[in-house]
Amino acid sequence: MLLGLTASRRVLSHGHCMLHRRNIKSETTARSAAVDSVLLKFRSICGEDGVSLSDAVREQHGKDESVHRCRPPDVVVFPRSVEEVSALAKVCHSHKLPIIPFGTGTGLEGGVGAVKGGVCFSLRNMDQVLDLHQEDFDVTVEPGVTRKALNAYLRGTGLWFPVDPGADASLCGMAATSASGTNAVRYGTMRENVLNLEVVLPDGTIIHTAGKGRRPRKTSAGYNLTNLFVGSEGTLGIITKTTLRLYGIPEAMVSAVCSFPSIQSAVDSTVQVLQAGVPIARIEFLDDVMIDACNRFSSLSYPVTPTLFLEFHGSERSLEEQVNTTEEITQSNGGADFQWATDAETRNRLWKARHDAWYAAMALRPGCKAYATDVCVPLSRLPQIIVETKEDLIENKLTGPIAGHVGDGNFHCLMVVDPNDPEEQHRVHLFTERLARRALAMDGTCTGEHGVGLGKRTLLCEEMGPMAMRVMQGLKDALDPKNLMNPGKILQPIEL
Amino acid sequence: MLLGLTASRRVLSHGHCMLHRRNIKSETTARSAAVDSVLLKFRSICGEDGVSLSDAVREQHGKDESVHRCRPPDVVVFPRSVEEVSALAKVCHSHKLPIIPFGTGTGLEGGVGAVKGGVCFSLRNMDQVLDLHQEDFDVTVEPGVTRKALNAYLRGTGLWFPVDPGADASLCGMAATSASGTNAVRYGTMRENVLNLEVVLPDGTIIHTAGKGRRPRKTSAGYNLTNLFVGSEGTLGIITKTTLRLYGIPEAMVSAVCSFPSIQSAVDSTVQVLQAGVPIARIEFLDDVMIDACNRFSSLSYPVTPTLFLEFHGSERSLEEQVNTTEEITQSNGGADFQWATDAETRNRLWKARHDAWYAAMALRPGCKAYATDVCVPLSRLPQIIVETKEDLIENKLTGPIAGHVGDGNFHCLMVVDPNDPEEQHRVHLFTERLARRALAMDGTCTGEHGVGLGKRTLLCEEMGPMAMRVMQGLKDALDPKNLMNPGKILQPIEL
Repeated sequence: MLLGLTASRRVLSHGHCMLHRRNIKSETTARSAAVDSVLLKFRSICGEDGVSLSDAVREQHGKDESVHRCRPPDVVVFPRSVEEVSALAKVCHSHKLPIIPFGTGTGLEGGVGAVKGGVCFSLRNMDQVLDLHQEDFDVTVEPGVTRKALNAYLRGTGLWFPVDPGADASLCGMAATSASGTNAVRYGTMRENVLNLEVVLPDGTIIHTAGKGRRPRKTSAGYNLTNLFVGSEGTLGIITKTTLRLYGIPEAMVSAVCSFPSIQSAVDSTVQVLQAGVPIARIEFLDDVMIDACNRFSSLSYPVTPTLFLEFHGSERSLEEQVNTTEEITQSNGGADFQWATDAETRNRLWKARHDAWYAAMALRPGCKAYATDVCVPLSRLPQIIVETKEDLIENKLTGPIAGHVGDGNFHCLMVVDPNDPEEQHRVHLFTERLARRALAMDGTCTGEHGVGLGKRTLLCEEMGPMAMRVMQGLKDALDPKNLMNPGKILQPIEL
Repeated sequence: MLLGLTASRRVLSHGHCMLHRRNIKSETTARSAAVDSVLLKFRSICGEDGVSLSDAVREQHGKDESVHRCRPPDVVVFPRSVEEVSALAKVCHSHKLPIIPFGTGTGLEGGVGAVKGGVCFSLRNMDQVLDLHQEDFDVTVEPGVTRKALNAYLRGTGLWFPVDPGADASLCGMAATSASGTNAVRYGTMRENVLNLEVVLPDGTIIHTAGKGRRPRKTSAGYNLTNLFVGSEGTLGIITKTTLRLYGIPEAMVSAVCSFPSIQSAVDSTVQVLQAGVPIARIEFLDDVMIDACNRFSSLSYPVTPTLFLEFHGSERSLEEQVNTTEEITQSNGGADFQWATDAETRNRLWKARHDAWYAAMALRPGCKAYATDVCVPLSRLPQIIVETKEDLIENKLTGPIAGHVGDGNFHCLMVVDPNDPEEQHRVHLFTERLARRALAMDGTCTGEHGVGLGKRTLLCEEMGPMAMRVMQGLKDALDPKNLMNPGKILQPIEL
């Protein structure tokens, strides 16, 4: 089937890249000269220090926090400006080299793996916070700025950026993967909080998805390019600037923990709190296994039953009302009394325990690795899917404590797997597929916030159907006709 | 330049359509037979009553509420199901006939004009509310369902759909134009409130932008097709179902009116209210000319100075606090005491007066027509742009009272124009272009909520820049390679 293809197409379709070191020695002098010429161009663009071929650097840039592994990039470049990104992209484009954008490597679906080799664009040297407009509640950041760095920068302004996926990810990376996390129930995901993006297309063209420098709070100006690039996982272009919506820091925040007799009663409480219009900032579910793991890992002593971690933001007075309403609802569903965390230190300890759930899960089985599932279903289906999923875990002797952004219907099984036990890995794989299909059968999605990456390409096809997938492929072909941008992610490779 | 084109391409590029009645008599018998064959197919799909060639019906379906006028469609079809829409689209596709979706005709930028003739798909016969999920706060509607019809349907459920552009538009039309209106500052625009769309592509393919029947509150499953079609103004496909997010009806609502000594003080109050984190539901600005017109039209007697109309949603207790904070802020900016509207009747009268601003403006000069500008800028730029715009209006002797969704930075000059005075029309045209460019120079957009349609295609190019426009054209070409879907809207016609 390859006979009709040109040589360059064949090279790409086989996942080889002319920069790949394994190939260099066996290639002709002409090919080596071409490699040298590309590296020379890279160095002339971002300096000697801005190009690395070292094994350690390539390895580090070829993996994220997931279990997905594939080959590392052939070379890592460290551009210092959008002009350098554009110039590097032009070189890659003319030599048909894959481009893989890299932020902090905190992704969970193998989004930075170099499936076809190629050039990793590490954006850490572009780390400036630009154009803070306090009165307009917006700011523009370069790709090296993480969410914690931005919030540190904003200290003293009375503003903050609330989207919080747990990891201290780069904000442009969070835009690329459409991240969300614990605060999404109140403040939305990246989709609702990105106002504009600067993007370098695979041919080096620089665009601004809402027009250069524009930052109106709403717009109907043509196709929504911003939200096409948000969540595109580096497969359409390289995000080099993100303009974000900011929020006023609430006058007061309080957190609480509440234990429930059943999953149903915890989820029912969540639905009723939202129905009552309580503007709750965080409402996180932890199952008995998860709370037990958190207790051990973070030296806590919560009852080992289904649990909600809650947080309320607002004025002192509105908090009182939010809390009273919520407490009434939880009590009517059999919840225990709230355990309070009002001072900042106790609150931080509480949320650190929640954010450390990943490590708490891994500590259940030392030496094991973790993989997080990420289904999201309509709220009313949550109790059923969680109960069925726990039965499935027990039946298949798998360790998978559950933690979830239950206000959005999104939850994770933190699967702890022995990396040296292929049989267990296979059981986990089958379990995650059953879980995803369970979510699909309940009008949900296989991924609420982690994205598709390498791991969910088959499930995405089931979720969207062949016709919508064809539209997605059409968009990819329109923006990246040579399939250079982070190839092999989101979309299945086309069979040749 | 036309010589190299095929006949069919030439026909399209000249804005002719083989169904156009003016052509029929002068065409060959073969052509007439083709026309008859198409109409026969249409009738076989949606019945005798489902196809209209009458002048009155075509005229009615060829215009919206804007001043833009172009030829009406050649034929209007009234499909009753998505299957009929798909079958009709297939006929149009195979005969290269333009397709123009039609909801309620309440658009403001000429979105339904048949620039190239063709077939208007009136969707009013598809008017069912489907799949209300109360516990999940979502509902799916067909394109004939208007926002008022949905809210009437929801009566008694404790839920409502808040996006309110003023007109009783169809919800699928509101999705197509990315509508918003007075409640957007609290509840967002259609972009934030559409969970899924069923869309018929120009070749008749049916897709679901988030997968069939899916309705998770958040998703990271591949490219955001939903938000690509929201705001695409019928140029990419026909929206045949919309799944919407619903909200709990607030326990209490109060409205108030407050007069200010200056535009600056009214806008400063708005910024400070938002900074204080007051979850205000509506905050609408009316300038002195507008409030005067509303007073006359709706028999009110507010002081003729810059004015804010406000609305607060929440529990009784939280309202008290919202109102106190807001009143403190307005008073510190020199605002007068609030005039209250607590009972539903007074509130409705107040908001009817706001929604009737369009007619109040027109009543300033009987016999004239109105055109609404729609710029949106960052909040901090609002005072300057409104002051400069008012000076421009006075200098050019134009009537253009100003009303705005000031919490979003979006405002309208309701231009009242003598339809028999081409010189005045020209002055209005130049004014609206100056206004849009003023907004662009202040990091804003030429359209906050009305869309591009026919009127803002040149301005869109200035706003986005040539490279982003090329991306938009690439998306259009990928989804509608024959340029059949509502041709001539959003994107400039390509010069041939």
